[in-house]
Amino acid sequence: MTNTKMTDSVATDFSIWAKEKQDHIEIVLDEALPSQTTAPAILHEAMRYSLLGGGKRVRALLCYAAAELCATNTTITDAAACAVEMIHAYSLVHDDMPCMDNDDLRRGKPSCHKQYDDATALLVGDALQSLAFDLLSTPTLCENANQQISMLNILAKASGSLGMAGGQAIDLASIGKALTQSELETMHKLKTGALIQAAALLGASSGTAEKMSAVIVYAEHIGLAFQVVDDILDVEADTSTLGKTAGKDADSSKPTYVTILGLDHAKQLADQLYETAISALIPFGEDAKRLRELAGFILQRSF
Amino acid sequence: MTNTKMTDSVATDFSIWAKEKQDHIEIVLDEALPSQTTAPAILHEAMRYSLLGGGKRVRALLCYAAAELCATNTTITDAAACAVEMIHAYSLVHDDMPCMDNDDLRRGKPSCHKQYDDATALLVGDALQSLAFDLLSTPTLCENANQQISMLNILAKASGSLGMAGGQAIDLASIGKALTQSELETMHKLKTGALIQAAALLGASSGTAEKMSAVIVYAEHIGLAFQVVDDILDVEADTSTLGKTAGKDADSSKPTYVTILGLDHAKQLADQLYETAISALIPFGEDAKRLRELAGFILQRSF
Repeated sequence: MTNTKMTDSVATDFSIWAKEKQDHIEIVLDEALPSQTTAPAILHEAMRYSLLGGGKRVRALLCYAAAELCATNTTITDAAACAVEMIHAYSLVHDDMPCMDNDDLRRGKPSCHKQYDDATALLVGDALQSLAFDLLSTPTLCENANQQISMLNILAKASGSLGMAGGQAIDLASIGKALTQSELETMHKLKTGALIQAAALLGASSGTAEKMSAVIVYAEHIGLAFQVVDDILDVEADTSTLGKTAGKDADSSKPTYVTILGLDHAKQLADQLYETAISALIPFGEDAKRLRELAGFILQRSF
Repeated sequence: MTNTKMTDSVATDFSIWAKEKQDHIEIVLDEALPSQTTAPAILHEAMRYSLLGGGKRVRALLCYAAAELCATNTTITDAAACAVEMIHAYSLVHDDMPCMDNDDLRRGKPSCHKQYDDATALLVGDALQSLAFDLLSTPTLCENANQQISMLNILAKASGSLGMAGGQAIDLASIGKALTQSELETMHKLKTGALIQAAALLGASSGTAEKMSAVIVYAEHIGLAFQVVDDILDVEADTSTLGKTAGKDADSSKPTYVTILGLDHAKQLADQLYETAISALIPFGEDAKRLRELAGFILQRSF
């Protein structure tokens, strides 16, 4: 994962853009959440605890980068980025629960059920999912109501049993089993890929059919690359850098790209996926700049 | 709860209508769910187990009855009724889990986490919520896309932290506490009332502002009546009739209308709520027939 390294000036420019978007989405998320004094106060406090102040907001960044390609307006993009981050945060809260991955640490803090309790974590996840659809169904969000319905449908499908929740079910069923690379890929396409693709597609929702098709190809490959890198980091990074428990997947006998392919081949695969992803953007030149840079960022992240 | 008894012929006519709608929604729900051989098969099997073949479908009936008042078309009403039943079923699956009410029995069968396991139950609930929004965001469901967005927003708000999930959080926090009648009412307005009101409103979504206002008043009062009757049944019915564990609420020191008001006053309250609910329907005569009958049915149910 070295041949795709950004030059320093590109990296700096991208970092400034990303930081600006990360700060911005934090404010928008904060405003979209009920205050922690609104009843039921514990639930709202726990929702805020789980959603705010953490994470690299990769899905939101994808949404904003795709919006730059497709000139999607800021109000729509903000709502879409928030909704996707809410779905992602809910999935982390539920995944960390004792009956799932039983993880005590998330984004460098006690996970929701450790900070509060299991029942609260369950409700936090449930309510964050509702809030995502609440936000994206805000009346008059889009001038074109049919575009808005299509966005809601994309998010719902990406979240459900044929998307993220389905991938989670396959993941659970695969613990201790020897998966092929193809089976592992199917699982990740649902578990993380579906929502990553939705993030990019929602950002691109004002674009032409040609641009949206390119974004689908880009997002599908970058989504897989993201997971391969995740598996590599699970082996290479330490817990404090990762913000969650390192080595967790290997310890729990979960199949990963590293266990199936070995570390070197996993890195090669990540590079190949990156190349395919950015190839889809060639026709769009500078308009696709942020998507291209974001792909590099995903490949090189060491957080 | 005797002064509101329906005559035999009205009851028979209503029973035929209700049975027809119950059979119909079962078919529509079946078609809306992925088959149990669709991967991930266990998740889909468990979703079908939790959603199909049980319950009186009170929320779906409310939706259909309100649709008769407002001449909402069948396709829209079917989707709305399905979506509401999916949200309701997800809430039951999550509520039954060990970290919440820890109930082994639901609709006369082992609850989802007993039949499968906790992780599957968690994902079943999550995926049923997504599926509700997926279904209701089906492109071109409504000729008027803004109506559809408004329906999605009603459902999302009713499900979230200021609706059903919020009510559940207040319920959990109230165990062992002495609530006033007003506090109990607030909890139930969120926990069950919000979704019951949404069911009626979604059915009424093609209606005039006057009709929708009446439906809101009707649904608010019938929603509370439903809960009061639930509390009465928890004391009076036995487990086999109820299809869930009887006496559960009293045993777990949850405040109920019966513990706060006593049995007789709780029954009086149910009657009053019923009267207020059907009073709102007076201007609409025969068009409101099913809503009126359904209110009587909710008051007299002995299941």
